Order: sequence, then C-alpha cells, then structure tokens
Amino acid sequence: MLKVLISNDDGIHANGIQTLAAKLSQHYEIYVVAPDRERSATGHALTLHKPIHIEEPEMRFPVAKAYAISGTPSDCVKLALNALLVDVKIDLLVSGINHGPNLGSDVIYSGTVSAALEGAIHGVPSIAVSLVNGFEKLADFSHGADFIADFIPKAMKIGIPSKSILNINIPAVPLHDFAGVQIAELGTRMYTDSYERRVDPRGRVYYWLAGEVIDTGDSDDSDVEAIRNNMVSVSPVHYNLTNYNGLTLLREKQDIFG
Amino acid sequence: MLKVLISNDDGIHANGIQTLAAKLSQHYEIYVVAPDRERSATGHALTLHKPIHIEEPEMRFPVAKAYAISGTPSDCVKLALNALLVDVKIDLLVSGINHGPNLGSDVIYSGTVSAALEGAIHGVPSIAVSLVNGFEKLADFSHGADFIADFIPKAMKIGIPSKSILNINIPAVPLHDFAGVQIAELGTRMYTDSYERRVDPRGRVYYWLAGEVIDTGDSDDSDVEAIRNNMVSVSPVHYNLTNYNGLTLLREKQDIFG
Repeated sequence: MLKVLISNDDGIHANGIQTLAAKLSQHYEIYVVAPDRERSATGHALTLHKPIHIEEPEMRFPVAKAYAISGTPSDCVKLALNALLVDVKIDLLVSGINHGPNLGSDVIYSGTVSAALEGAIHGVPSIAVSLVNGFEKLADFSHGADFIADFIPKAMKIGIPSKSILNINIPAVPLHDFAGVQIAELGTRMYTDSYERRVDPRGRVYYWLAGEVIDTGDSDDSDVEAIRNNMVSVSPVHYNLTNYNGLTLLREKQDIFG
Repeated sequence: MLKVLISNDDGIHANGIQTLAAKLSQHYEIYVVAPDRERSATGHALTLHKPIHIEEPEMRFPVAKAYAISGTPSDCVKLALNALLVDVKIDLLVSGINHGPNLGSDVIYSGTVSAALEGAIHGVPSIAVSLVNGFEKLADFSHGADFIADFIPKAMKIGIPSKSILNINIPAVPLHDFAGVQIAELGTRMYTDSYERRVDPRGRVYYWLAGEVIDTGDSDDSDVEAIRNNMVSVSPVHYNLTNYNGLTLLREKQDIFG
C-alpha cells in the first residue's frame, strides 16, 4: 500500500487537509505532519532559531501517524522526512487541500507549494493541491479530495517530472461541472497591492495589505485561464530558479564584468 | 542621479546593509526600507494578517528616506513601492549585503533573494547580494560594497534579464584576491538535515534543525563552484517556477488525465 505523507499551510485542523486525509485514508497508509496553526503565505520559510515542538493530536480517521508541528510547512516536511518518519519509506507527498488558489506567480508566496517543493528537494514525488474558493471557512473540499484520490494512481503511473512537483488547482464547482484537466504553465497574477494606512490607538502609523487581483491577459495555456474555464490545472513546478535564457544573454556580455 | 532602494533580511541595523548603503550613498540617492529585526530564512513570506508598523530610524550616512518595518523582506519592498515611496521613481533595488551565502538551491529559502524578486515582480531592476562568510557578526563587508558600487553601472548598462534578478555572491577574501566574475547557474547545495531531538524543562519533546552542507559535485558553471574558486558569482534568477520541459513531457501523456 502506498505510504502518503500529507501536509499543508492552513494548519492540521483545517477543513481542506482533514477532508483530503480522510478520503486518502480509504486507499493508502496515511502520515499527517502539518503545522499546529494557520501558516499561510509563509513562503519557503524555515525555523532555524527556535525549537520546533511536536504533538500527536487525535484524528477522526485511520492514520499511521499524525503530528502537529510548531513550525512552517517546510519545517513539517523536512522534520518528517529527516526525523519523525525516518524509518518510513514515503512514496508520495500531498500538500493541501489549500483554502484558496495557488495560481501563477503567486506560487512563490505559497506555503502549500513550498511544502511540496521541500518533498521534491528530498526526492519524494510531491503534489500541491488548492481549491479555488473564496476563502470561505465552510467550503466543500469533497470534490477536490475525490479528484485527487482518482488522480494519484495516474500521476504515479506517468511519473512526476524530475526535481519538480505538480501544482494542482481545483475549481470550486461540483465534480460533474469540471470541464477536464489542463496541463498548464503558471500564468501571471497581478495585484493592485494597495496598502491601507491607519493610525493605532497609541498614535502610531501602521499599514495593512489590501491588494486585489487584476485580471491580466494570460495565455490560453496558463493555470489562471484553465481555472477560468472550470478546468483543473496541473502545472509542473521546479525549484531551480536559474533563468537559463538570461544566463546565455549575460554570458554574451561577460566582458564588461572583467 | 540613480535612485536606489536598499533592503535586506538581516534587519536595518545589520553590518551588511549599513556598509552597503553608506558606500552607495556616495554615488546615488538612497532609500532604505528594511526589516526592523533579523528576518533570515523567511523565504518569500508576506504579512497578511497583522498590521505592519513603520519607524524612521536615524542613519549614519546621507539618505533620502530610511524606514524600519515590522515585516518580512517581501513586505518591505511591496510596502516601499506601493505606499511609502509611491511618489519616487526607483531605478534600482539592491537587497543585502546578506551575512552568509545565498547559493544554489538555497535561494528558495532566502529572504534576501525574495526581496529582490519582489522588486522584479514590480518591474524594478533588482540585485541580491550576499557575502559568503561564516556568519561572523564582524565580517568585513567593505570589499563587497566596493564591488557592488563598481558593478551597478555595468549592470545598468547591459540590462538585467526580463522578469529576473541578478543574484550575486561575493567570496569573503580581500578585493585583490577576487579571481574575477563568473556568470553562473544555480548549483546544488545538499544538507544532512539532521535534527537534534531534545526534551525541554517541562518534559516536552522538541527538535532543532542542525544541518550541515555536503559538498556535491557541481558543474563548473555553477555559483557554488565559482565561490569555491574565489570568484564573484552572478546568476540570473527568475520568479516563473514553471518547469517547461516537464510541461512538454506531461502534455505528451495528457490522455491519461481525461
């Protein structure tokens, strides 16, 4: 039986991870290692300067092990693979289901995606899954969980590209309204990035991020466009950030640097 | 006169940013917007759920503006470009000088690099700079600052590749021992990723990350190898994480997903 490690960035008690893990526990041996609280938009942060505490909460479905961690999503996966589950051969990591989209250029901020990338860095086939809902606390994750249960054997069969994860976004519509699966590149998401300037009760100025998404003209091949068409987007995302075209351009002008 | 925004992840009072900003203030109009404390390994985290406080500390060299921010490196740049300095046309962002290397696959964890990427996302030419010292508090950043002062006009002349930053690592040797500049791809840095398991005074188990770098066989073209040869590494790093080779592979097998 496939041994599946499940993590997320919304915290171990979030609806998305609970629905996913309960569903996958019907098919696989499940290990849950997730933050003990919400850790959204932590990017690929690591906890270096503080101890990481662990607890073993009770789960409402059968799991081999479940740990709640006082750290970030990356901490969870690093700690799981190097300490907590070092005697278990994990076959697959699934991070999610995230509450809200992780599309396009936004994936660089995503704790959900970074947990999966940490798995890939350790050589574990890894998938990040997000539901494109409006961040409602009571969103229905069951269609997403059903889709992933069906998707896993297919992904394991064709293989996840080397040094990469699959980043999956699921439209927030019933399963029978899914318009298919699109293998998609990451699109562009632009924000207005407005900040609200306020004054606190002690007279100190503070700012609060209040950005809104601007619809940009994405290519038809992008994940942003796929979701717009009620398709599930599947994007191979890697952790090598070298811009190789840029490398070639710079090398042609290397002389200027001496 | 070039308007240069300076940020970092070690905090506004760190030696690296102070040395860099003092040096660049001899040539350019300087804006400093940096975290009010150390924010290493915060990855590309954003502060969404808390207010961001700002202060205007006194600086020991001429600046147009200097702000200390209760947020992450990405927050600093986002807030600077969208609120604090919205009336200033910033020509260049320099993030650093970081205390310690940001090489190879490690850049994904780097607050220094993420501040620069945030600049690139906003269309500002951006550079991340790190000194490959052993994290000594009293490292000498002056050679690095001299190098960057000399490098900036060259980089502005040839242009920074689109949607990318230049990630620069500087060897911790005197300027006259620099063996040149290498345009380098990001290499691989592997860690042992050991965690120390300890028990706290109240009997609770905790873990502490204690990884060590393993020397891997990098290609001669990598930043890791460049630093090993006392060269300054200059790597174009972008924020589009799509694995395009993987995209092609997956599309050939698209049928399996229906």
